[in-house]
Amino acid sequence: MGIIVQKFGGTSVATTERIQNVRNRVMEEVQNGKQVVVVVSAMGKTTDHLVSLAKELSTNPSKREMDMLLTTGEQVTISLLSMALQEAGQPAVSLTGWQAGIQTEKVFSNARIIDIQTDRIQKLLESNQVVIVAGFQGVSEDGEITTLGRGGSDTTAVALAAALGAERCDIYTDVTGVFTSDPRFVKEARKLESISYDEMLELAHLGAGVLHPRAVEFAKNYQMPLEVRSSMEPERGTRLEEEVQLEKGLVVRGVAFEGDVTRITLFGLPKSQAKLSKVFSRLAENHINIDIIIQALTGESKSNLSFSIMDQDIEHTLSVLEQFKDEFEYDKVESETGLAKVSIVGSGMVSNPGVAAKMFEVLEAADATIKMVSTSEIKVSAVIEQEKMLSSARALHEAFDLQEKSASLVK
Amino acid sequence: MGIIVQKFGGTSVATTERIQNVRNRVMEEVQNGKQVVVVVSAMGKTTDHLVSLAKELSTNPSKREMDMLLTTGEQVTISLLSMALQEAGQPAVSLTGWQAGIQTEKVFSNARIIDIQTDRIQKLLESNQVVIVAGFQGVSEDGEITTLGRGGSDTTAVALAAALGAERCDIYTDVTGVFTSDPRFVKEARKLESISYDEMLELAHLGAGVLHPRAVEFAKNYQMPLEVRSSMEPERGTRLEEEVQLEKGLVVRGVAFEGDVTRITLFGLPKSQAKLSKVFSRLAENHINIDIIIQALTGESKSNLSFSIMDQDIEHTLSVLEQFKDEFEYDKVESETGLAKVSIVGSGMVSNPGVAAKMFEVLEAADATIKMVSTSEIKVSAVIEQEKMLSSARALHEAFDLQEKSASLVK
Repeated sequence: MGIIVQKFGGTSVATTERIQNVRNRVMEEVQNGKQVVVVVSAMGKTTDHLVSLAKELSTNPSKREMDMLLTTGEQVTISLLSMALQEAGQPAVSLTGWQAGIQTEKVFSNARIIDIQTDRIQKLLESNQVVIVAGFQGVSEDGEITTLGRGGSDTTAVALAAALGAERCDIYTDVTGVFTSDPRFVKEARKLESISYDEMLELAHLGAGVLHPRAVEFAKNYQMPLEVRSSMEPERGTRLEEEVQLEKGLVVRGVAFEGDVTRITLFGLPKSQAKLSKVFSRLAENHINIDIIIQALTGESKSNLSFSIMDQDIEHTLSVLEQFKDEFEYDKVESETGLAKVSIVGSGMVSNPGVAAKMFEVLEAADATIKMVSTSEIKVSAVIEQEKMLSSARALHEAFDLQEKSASLVK
Repeated sequence: MGIIVQKFGGTSVATTERIQNVRNRVMEEVQNGKQVVVVVSAMGKTTDHLVSLAKELSTNPSKREMDMLLTTGEQVTISLLSMALQEAGQPAVSLTGWQAGIQTEKVFSNARIIDIQTDRIQKLLESNQVVIVAGFQGVSEDGEITTLGRGGSDTTAVALAAALGAERCDIYTDVTGVFTSDPRFVKEARKLESISYDEMLELAHLGAGVLHPRAVEFAKNYQMPLEVRSSMEPERGTRLEEEVQLEKGLVVRGVAFEGDVTRITLFGLPKSQAKLSKVFSRLAENHINIDIIIQALTGESKSNLSFSIMDQDIEHTLSVLEQFKDEFEYDKVESETGLAKVSIVGSGMVSNPGVAAKMFEVLEAADATIKMVSTSEIKVSAVIEQEKMLSSARALHEAFDLQEKSASLVK
């Protein structure tokens, strides 16, 4: 009998009514003859509420105690879903992370799963129980409760699916699948039937936000078929799998974008590899996420270094740069806010050298100024003015034929 | 270095402000040079909120899942208190029941502690950390989360104190100690400096409500000195210990009372030990708590059986009696509500045969009708009309010299 792992996020379990809806989704798979493992997140605003309690008591609560606190959220959901299933006559058992055998590194707030002991789950599945596992959490070797960080429940679900040799892992969310672009802003965006792990990885990193990158990596490593679908709508979602038949002529499969980007430039930095890595280590030590990096030589021994960060990190970044000014030896620093990043993604790009050039033409036609560029084998990103972000995204979506009318091309 | 176990109930940790107050109590003991283990309950109304969520999903949620749900309450409190201590510069670590090594039977909602593996706590205490343990919860041998039932956090605290060889276990609550009677209703009631385990046990069973009987039993078995005191007021509370110097002339040490008592009478029950035990096994199977039992013979082969229950159990009790009418073979059943139980407690009673007689005189003088009586070596209880409960309790309090002016007699 095949095993299906289903994952429901916080919005899908926000109220007891929605938990009853989730129960129906679970029972459908049981009626399909599947053994079902369900992974759930904390109910809606629970985590926010817990975080606000913590802030009332501590300006900088320890990560260990935050993990202790936040893991209660999923524990509430698993027991409630189990009750809902039992009430409907479906045998079910809830398990916390440690009960489900989810072993992690001893790293609080952002642990990685190192092993899953599946015997307890296997035994329960064999006795025809639906097994409900708390997402986002695990236990270290010495019995400390840990959490997996943002998007952790996705990772729990995919890791469990891999460890159990599941047929498929279904990620239920509040959208109906993965779209060619964000349908809230790009009206022509359409749902993809399937997408490759690598493409999804780029989209996830680019802020498409449907699936956490770590979960996608996990799925890719274990070649676990995923499906992203809606917990509210019955329609099929988007399959993630290795071998995706390329849609004819569709080199680009998605347009992603995000605003609130700032470009920082250090002028007159000594031209040395050591100096460069020093800058980025110091920023990393201070938990500042850097995205695109560009270095321009300005002479024999000097260079200008630009990199992009999120707006919210500006003050912190500038204070770190100021703090280490003597160490870095730059002449001056400048920052430019009000920027955005627009990206195109598609595995077909690697064999289509003209894609980047076409993107730049489209951006130029859309009157956007390209401030920075970054490319990988399957994506091209450009930093432009934020006020041009949506019009540029729409123009790219149209130029690369992603609009609704091509939907028939989807295999 | 001596170990002190402190226990704070739900009212004492109901808000983050109160948790800060608890933090101060903990730090005082640390400043006294003690190693401190703190046991806490769920914050104020948390449990009620969780129960109401469960009821939205299930008419009769499984006990296993209720334990899974409710144990999150204490887990929230331990992490918050730990954060509060850390914020004040005091190293602290929170532990759930299973992390603290609290092993119980596999009985959901009402498990008994069978062992406590203290090595983890010991190691943390030796590294000068305050250890905060979730009350009310434990883990069975096969890794199931269990709860200890009502008053479970008291039991956790006393059991931990015993297992750790603590100097003392302080139970912080919303009253300042154990009183000669309930000070809300008997103005003359005064706080006892000390009381024996047995006396406390009777008072606890009689609804004095300060300490759970199971915790008192545990303390008695391990001869663990307890102190019941207020989490808000600095004054000393009431010590529980084996050897209590009897206050001169004070044979009776407390007057307890509770209302909402119902008397059930089965008329014409066959006079047989087997029949009697059958009745009470059936009621026990149906989780109906019986208090006082009286059997009156009415002939060679018949008897009338009366017993007292709480008002809230009337309907359930009558339906069980109706269900097994053929098995029990009684003629008819009657119930009388609107009753109350008034009790006097004191270890000195056993050597003072006139105490019960004096109690009946006082009740008679107070115009109360004695419906049922029950005695032990250290208490006498009488069921009377509820409308006479408070006046009777006050009369008993005065007749046995428990009033405030005798406070100087307390050693």
